[in-house]
Amino acid sequence: MSILQIGAGGVGWVIAHKAAQNNDVLGDITIASRSIAKCEAIIESIDKKQNRKDLSKSLYARAVNANDVAELVALIEEVKPKLVINAGPPWVNLTIMEACYQAKVSYLDTSVAVDLCSEGQQVPEAYDEQWKYGEKFAQAGITGILGAGFDPGVVSVFAAYAVKHLFDEIDTIDVMDVNAGNHGKKFATNFDPETNMLEIQGDSFYWEQGEWKQVPCHSRMLEFDFPVVGKHKVYSMAHDEVRSLQAFIPAKRIEFWMSFGERYLNYFNCMRDIGLLSPEPLTLHDGTVVQPLHVLKALLPDPTSLAPGYTGNTCIGTWVQGTKSGEPRSVFIYNIADHEVAYDDVEHQAIAYTTGVPAITAALQFFRGEWAEPGVFNMEQLDPDPFLATMPELGLSWDVQELTVAQPTINILK
Amino acid sequence: MSILQIGAGGVGWVIAHKAAQNNDVLGDITIASRSIAKCEAIIESIDKKQNRKDLSKSLYARAVNANDVAELVALIEEVKPKLVINAGPPWVNLTIMEACYQAKVSYLDTSVAVDLCSEGQQVPEAYDEQWKYGEKFAQAGITGILGAGFDPGVVSVFAAYAVKHLFDEIDTIDVMDVNAGNHGKKFATNFDPETNMLEIQGDSFYWEQGEWKQVPCHSRMLEFDFPVVGKHKVYSMAHDEVRSLQAFIPAKRIEFWMSFGERYLNYFNCMRDIGLLSPEPLTLHDGTVVQPLHVLKALLPDPTSLAPGYTGNTCIGTWVQGTKSGEPRSVFIYNIADHEVAYDDVEHQAIAYTTGVPAITAALQFFRGEWAEPGVFNMEQLDPDPFLATMPELGLSWDVQELTVAQPTINILK
Repeated sequence: MSILQIGAGGVGWVIAHKAAQNNDVLGDITIASRSIAKCEAIIESIDKKQNRKDLSKSLYARAVNANDVAELVALIEEVKPKLVINAGPPWVNLTIMEACYQAKVSYLDTSVAVDLCSEGQQVPEAYDEQWKYGEKFAQAGITGILGAGFDPGVVSVFAAYAVKHLFDEIDTIDVMDVNAGNHGKKFATNFDPETNMLEIQGDSFYWEQGEWKQVPCHSRMLEFDFPVVGKHKVYSMAHDEVRSLQAFIPAKRIEFWMSFGERYLNYFNCMRDIGLLSPEPLTLHDGTVVQPLHVLKALLPDPTSLAPGYTGNTCIGTWVQGTKSGEPRSVFIYNIADHEVAYDDVEHQAIAYTTGVPAITAALQFFRGEWAEPGVFNMEQLDPDPFLATMPELGLSWDVQELTVAQPTINILK
Repeated sequence: MSILQIGAGGVGWVIAHKAAQNNDVLGDITIASRSIAKCEAIIESIDKKQNRKDLSKSLYARAVNANDVAELVALIEEVKPKLVINAGPPWVNLTIMEACYQAKVSYLDTSVAVDLCSEGQQVPEAYDEQWKYGEKFAQAGITGILGAGFDPGVVSVFAAYAVKHLFDEIDTIDVMDVNAGNHGKKFATNFDPETNMLEIQGDSFYWEQGEWKQVPCHSRMLEFDFPVVGKHKVYSMAHDEVRSLQAFIPAKRIEFWMSFGERYLNYFNCMRDIGLLSPEPLTLHDGTVVQPLHVLKALLPDPTSLAPGYTGNTCIGTWVQGTKSGEPRSVFIYNIADHEVAYDDVEHQAIAYTTGVPAITAALQFFRGEWAEPGVFNMEQLDPDPFLATMPELGLSWDVQELTVAQPTINILK
């Protein structure tokens, strides 16, 4: 029994801590990334926090180029894990899946490769390339679990729970993500600034009445009164799980919403207006060519550095409306995560925490044989009950809030 | 009779047009810059606008490196001008002055080399290096006229006019600069973004009760009801002429103020907060080293491109308070310039226009023998009357507004 984790960023940090806390089930843990020093820093933090449950199981650090299939296959064959956990950025999903297929080892990741700036690689096509591995994985007798973070991830498990237990028919699914935390910086992103800024400036895609709708970013807004964190404005955004929910759960409208404070939006609009969010090459007066977005990435604080002193809560959940036994029903299934509690547990902030905990919760389902069918699966396709029974033990609780049935008031902006 | 103009940016553009409109006095005009194509573009514009008054006088384009004294001397000796007009950025003032001294030709520039980020080269030391040429120029029988733009420049002539005609004793001199124009861009600078952003983020220096005061940018604000453009908030800023006014006109307080709209300040604060206004080298993740400010410069519109379609007015003037015949007195001496009128005259906007017109007005005083004494002079040292009689003929009118005597309400911010 052992796992191989590829990626040592913020999410990888939490995944490794949580894996170590469950190494009586998962076994030895190898952490691999381009920088072996980043892997070793995580192992140091795990030792410091005494997060290795079974001291007879080991932690290893390895260097690997996740873009190189042959190098990945060689590493997998050396480590011989039962499961490869892809904790890297989504653009290495396909090389790691291919390596897992070649080495005949199961695979798990936390988000899909949606290239928000490229035609033909947006939400309506999300997962297309990864789903092509379905038959191959089934024939090879290995399992692929896709999008096993919080959003995508747990929000889809919440939707599956609603289908299984709470509704006969579903009208609308609104995934909503609020970070009401405070990192004390004037402006910073909670994960990789490049990925974050591409995600936020891309058009939003939502599913309505049997077709995809594409609208400019921040052009659809609704206000919602969230448990614990209170009222927030959330904005329609392109997000992976809208695609998988659309594929697996019939509904009239499926949409993803994220909260942005006025201050954040002001910085965002300013940076976009002057062209700083562009991934297109820019030639400086001395002939140097740079991507403005890479300059921004170098200017902003390293998201990992935000964790100490980060206060406040996140609230992420799935708002489902539909009917049960002929009666209209409206529920919000959600988690509240506390930045300080996350830091105390694994020395990281709640944004990475809410992504990393579900990945190890899903890995435990796989190791226990509950989510271990050969093939490739998204989270809403799997039985939500054992997953939701386990997740609170790993640090993320969840609850169901019964709401008054009402059509959401969606404000069309600009 | 001929002039040699060095520099072919926005101010150089206007200077060349105005020189051509007065070439019956100034003679042949040679425009030199690092890029000969920029010089030729100006000559094309002059021909298109038919701005060459005396068609028997010629326009020439030359390439020159203004940092290279020997190259400058060779060019001056080839052209044999009566006056060298430095229309380049202020950091070439000293090389051009030295070349003029070596070639024994008179010199004129429009702003001083204040390095707003370096200790010992700020407002209290402004002009120090250039004033060292005073004796040398006097001995060589040549004239140097410093800071002959609008601000610095005409605002000091206004102060000299106040001393000569309106006051027995002066208490305060507040130079105030409002651009109430609209260029239609979300964010742009009216002159070189690098110079502009360094100027705006530097500490302000003002002279009060016999000593220099240094305060953070945008920390002192006053509201003033300007002729034509109405009420504006203006902020204390480091500016060249505070130094020369302090040197030549005794007053209790001397300060420079510039208007910034809320929108402009919002962009400025956002860019400063994320570090984009820094001239310090930044290493990107791929190892490329850039100055954030150079990236901003490449992102923002070329200031020259703003001129077509620029509407609205500028108002720049000198607010003087003191006593005349024992009575307190308060006057605002000012110019209103119209961006569209400027464009119609010389195909450029009013910011460059208000700098270029005074330079040629001053050059005409020199050619007429009125401002031609050997030595080095700032504008407030010279007789204001012939200059102020000529300036309106070149396109910039001026007026004196008598105000109610009142201490300005200076708001201390942050």
